[in-house]
Amino acid sequence: MTSVEDIARRARDAKEAIAQASTEQKNKALRAMARALMDSVNVILEENSKDIEEGRKQGISTALLDRLNLNPSRVEEMARGLLDVANLKDPVGEIVEGWRLPNGLVIEKVRVPIGVIGIIYEARPNVTVDAAGLCIKSGNAVILRGSSNAINSNSILVEIISKAAAQTGLPEDSIQLVRRTDRESARELMRMHGLVDLLIPRGGEGLIRTVVENSTVPVIETGVGNCHVYVDSDANIQMALRILINAKTQRPGVCNACETLLVHGEIAREFLPVAASELRKKNVRLRGCPVTKEILGDCEDATEEDWYSEYLDLILAVKVVDDLDEAVRHINKYGSGHSDAIVTNSYENSRIFTERVDSAAVYVNASTRFTDGGQFGMGAEIGISTQKLHARGPMSLPELTTTKFIIRGYGQIRE
Amino acid sequence: MTSVEDIARRARDAKEAIAQASTEQKNKALRAMARALMDSVNVILEENSKDIEEGRKQGISTALLDRLNLNPSRVEEMARGLLDVANLKDPVGEIVEGWRLPNGLVIEKVRVPIGVIGIIYEARPNVTVDAAGLCIKSGNAVILRGSSNAINSNSILVEIISKAAAQTGLPEDSIQLVRRTDRESARELMRMHGLVDLLIPRGGEGLIRTVVENSTVPVIETGVGNCHVYVDSDANIQMALRILINAKTQRPGVCNACETLLVHGEIAREFLPVAASELRKKNVRLRGCPVTKEILGDCEDATEEDWYSEYLDLILAVKVVDDLDEAVRHINKYGSGHSDAIVTNSYENSRIFTERVDSAAVYVNASTRFTDGGQFGMGAEIGISTQKLHARGPMSLPELTTTKFIIRGYGQIRE
Repeated sequence: MTSVEDIARRARDAKEAIAQASTEQKNKALRAMARALMDSVNVILEENSKDIEEGRKQGISTALLDRLNLNPSRVEEMARGLLDVANLKDPVGEIVEGWRLPNGLVIEKVRVPIGVIGIIYEARPNVTVDAAGLCIKSGNAVILRGSSNAINSNSILVEIISKAAAQTGLPEDSIQLVRRTDRESARELMRMHGLVDLLIPRGGEGLIRTVVENSTVPVIETGVGNCHVYVDSDANIQMALRILINAKTQRPGVCNACETLLVHGEIAREFLPVAASELRKKNVRLRGCPVTKEILGDCEDATEEDWYSEYLDLILAVKVVDDLDEAVRHINKYGSGHSDAIVTNSYENSRIFTERVDSAAVYVNASTRFTDGGQFGMGAEIGISTQKLHARGPMSLPELTTTKFIIRGYGQIRE
Repeated sequence: MTSVEDIARRARDAKEAIAQASTEQKNKALRAMARALMDSVNVILEENSKDIEEGRKQGISTALLDRLNLNPSRVEEMARGLLDVANLKDPVGEIVEGWRLPNGLVIEKVRVPIGVIGIIYEARPNVTVDAAGLCIKSGNAVILRGSSNAINSNSILVEIISKAAAQTGLPEDSIQLVRRTDRESARELMRMHGLVDLLIPRGGEGLIRTVVENSTVPVIETGVGNCHVYVDSDANIQMALRILINAKTQRPGVCNACETLLVHGEIAREFLPVAASELRKKNVRLRGCPVTKEILGDCEDATEEDWYSEYLDLILAVKVVDDLDEAVRHINKYGSGHSDAIVTNSYENSRIFTERVDSAAVYVNASTRFTDGGQFGMGAEIGISTQKLHARGPMSLPELTTTKFIIRGYGQIRE
């Protein structure tokens, strides 16, 4: 089996050709990849069924089995995703800024591909196709390292799309899969400093932490979301309810779902009983601070650990705060810097909240569930960055590029 | 002595106040810091002389002693640097982009400070003041970790400027120095993920490598520069000479100095003898490929290692190449992605060179020595990034910031 280093070297050798490919060539490749997927639905489902069977044998959860499972419409969705990416604006070549120096030198800062991007991800086979499409469009070679659960699905998908891309003239090694799914293969990929230019882990907290701890390749941390909704003293109760229910229950298993509700003390006695009743209709379990418990009566205890927790489940931590300042301090202390919302009718409090909350996305009077490249109108997304370097919040094509300075002169030297 | 973790916690606790400080407050602090330095020249020079004395005892090189040495005009330069930074535009608060979604949500992407920035650097005490000034202006708390050689100078400088900043109302812990200069203290700083948001190492290759290998905090690699000048077949010989001599000899010890000369075979016999004679007048030693040796006669051998070398000295590796393609491939293989120049009169070759060379700064008909924040007209610089994430090339104030999304609505929820 090819070693991770071999794969990385091949990607490195392929990167110039893919970086130099024109937008037309890249779009042609994306369309060919989409067509090839549609032409191979049967073989894809066949390979996928091996993963499902193996997963059943190993007793993996129904939720995971569902995420693993492909059917004709899911394959079609992947193909359509590639066509959507073909229709997005090519970020490469954009002149971000430029100026002329007093000595006559003309400087341009130009957007260029990053080079070789590694993606380490869990379970869902659609990530394989989505990530490959975005990397190709942004002119990058990509190394995919999925999980063992999806190895048969991922292998056939990469075989199909990389062959299709190669047939349109892109290098064969533009899209590669690490077929070894032991831990060591992931660690090897993390140590490919100099060959791999960027690593994006997509998955749970454990995966992200392992990558941060071990990688010598620059990393963009994604996805962990301990998000808050803060209901201010003069919030519109109906609006606050609508936003809270949406943020908590519309899709509880994702990173931009609400995990902790903070309520101003002045509105808590009015708001909490209604909110609790609505939340319980949606099967949400509450874990409250002492004041919450006193107001609601029947409610589990929230411990210090709860304030740090990303449940990804129908559980909500609830805390009554004295004022806006306590809410902001709570969010900045316990939150993950993903998405946090205030519901208020106070101009001044909206101003202070958006200034002081140190998160990738800060909302006034809207659900945290909007933090998403598609929802933001940025096109497809490769992940949501929760770090501060390079990209913060939803990442799309421009975030998969870097820049270089091009300086044109006529013999200038430095005095 | 305060532990590195204590220092990091204090910086974390200070960061919100410095992030929220207005441009006026920050400028006031910078001017007070400059004034305090000018008022304390004597005590600064006294502490500096301890470092110099200690350095002499330990037999450190004259070059290093010179970089360590402060005098009244160098202190004045540091103070003037702070005033220059006060005059630079504040990057914080810039609305980088913004738009309205079909559902009525208004999204703004706003520039905000990164938070806590760690700087690990060698010898020169002026870095202490320069880095602190840039971090303060961009709204960041800074943790400085200089070398043991400069500990007395760095201690007094930080004492003076942090006190001056605090007297204008900024948090006392906005500027902190790690007073321990053992290796372990640097390593501790590298592991402060979650408390420190960014680490910038400034120094030689060894330091950069140690930080990349060990840091869990996101890092921006700086400074290593194996830069090339490529003289194309139809270059203007006089222009090529002027650029080469400037790039190699104007200041050989810095990262944007030229380390390897590449010459097109068709022009080599005409160009190399003149170039060698001019270079030798400047005491530059040449190490050539076989063809170079054949043309020049007396010239040391260049080994494979030479092509990878950043000499930072009056040594130049020389290679005759068959064509532009070989030149580009050489640069992309052996170079460090810092600054590379072509001298040519061919429009097509200038186009291909700037497209294909994968470096932070790519020059046509100009010296590589211009890669510098000040020369580029960006104001003071905190370093030159040779990595592709977050920032590439000279970094100034905007590169010390990140962004956040602020989303304003009136009750929108996700369907």
